[in-house]
Amino acid sequence: MQELGQLPGIGARTAERLAFHLLKASDEDALGLAEAIRDLKTLIHPCRVCFNPTEGDVCNVCGDSRRDHTTICVVEQPKDLLAIESTGSYQGVYHVLMGHIAPLDGIEAGDLTIDALVARVRTGLGDGSGERICEIILATNPTVSGDGTSLHIASLLEPLGVKVTRLARGLPTGGQIEYANKTILSDAINERRNF
Amino acid sequence: MQELGQLPGIGARTAERLAFHLLKASDEDALGLAEAIRDLKTLIHPCRVCFNPTEGDVCNVCGDSRRDHTTICVVEQPKDLLAIESTGSYQGVYHVLMGHIAPLDGIEAGDLTIDALVARVRTGLGDGSGERICEIILATNPTVSGDGTSLHIASLLEPLGVKVTRLARGLPTGGQIEYANKTILSDAINERRNF
Repeated sequence: MQELGQLPGIGARTAERLAFHLLKASDEDALGLAEAIRDLKTLIHPCRVCFNPTEGDVCNVCGDSRRDHTTICVVEQPKDLLAIESTGSYQGVYHVLMGHIAPLDGIEAGDLTIDALVARVRTGLGDGSGERICEIILATNPTVSGDGTSLHIASLLEPLGVKVTRLARGLPTGGQIEYANKTILSDAINERRNF
Repeated sequence: MQELGQLPGIGARTAERLAFHLLKASDEDALGLAEAIRDLKTLIHPCRVCFNPTEGDVCNVCGDSRRDHTTICVVEQPKDLLAIESTGSYQGVYHVLMGHIAPLDGIEAGDLTIDALVARVRTGLGDGSGERICEIILATNPTVSGDGTSLHIASLLEPLGVKVTRLARGLPTGGQIEYANKTILSDAINERRNF
């Protein structure tokens, strides 16, 4: 119960319920869970190229030759990568920062995978093709720390001459103007596009 | 109670409570409300230029010479105008459509103030300056009916050679990528901007 209670979102009562469920469950089910947790820690490690968790040397996206390896989408967390993958609108590859710069929480730029990203851009595809990275899409969260992280990365990438873009910001599709807050509406007006 | 119960969001119980409140209230308060409602219907009418409700001939925005009268922001409802005004980021004038095209609800293009908008663009500022309208910002809601209305208006404005833009669509500032739905994320990727 003590171990289960350390999981996020699981309080003392839920931990108790889970523990009794495991006690009643078959050996197979309970040991299956234990095995899966052990595998998670021993088999899963960051992709050598983009730091997305994977079992292999490189992740599924980096290993897929049909994807556009000259466009890199930079995300904070693996779950952001999954969210963008689920749209099916992105054909490039990724780079997972593993967090955002937050000096107050003691997270500096050096704690993220920014150096590896800069090295990726500097060396090009690195598959012997000599092809260069064309575009870096900064897809950090549209928050203060996400914007700060993007700004820092953009300043590092600028001297390398690579095209740097960021996700569009504005009204969420399906929303209503009257319920949008002032910041969202200001962004939507200032970043307006040709129809 | 019957009359009060016809207001939106006010059920039988609330109507009862309001009616008894008015019964207990001073003559001054109760008659003040009655007077305000009468004034609303007799004094308030659409602005001659932009259809924003006003007491005067033209509304405060249209009558303000410090605003940029060559840029018109087209909104569905007066409350959208108020939302955009509250941001303080927009210096142009408005045009209120008074709804959106919704054939299933029997609202056709002719029921809106689209003809008046086209006439505004065609005749220019109409203040004798001979100045022409530079930009129309289509700020309908980012919904199916809002988009349809914008598309219809854009097709009417195209032959007039005026620049037509629309509000930016993408991630709402302050939001999180992992909680954005697929449509929002697709928009954010497809409409990405240079950093």
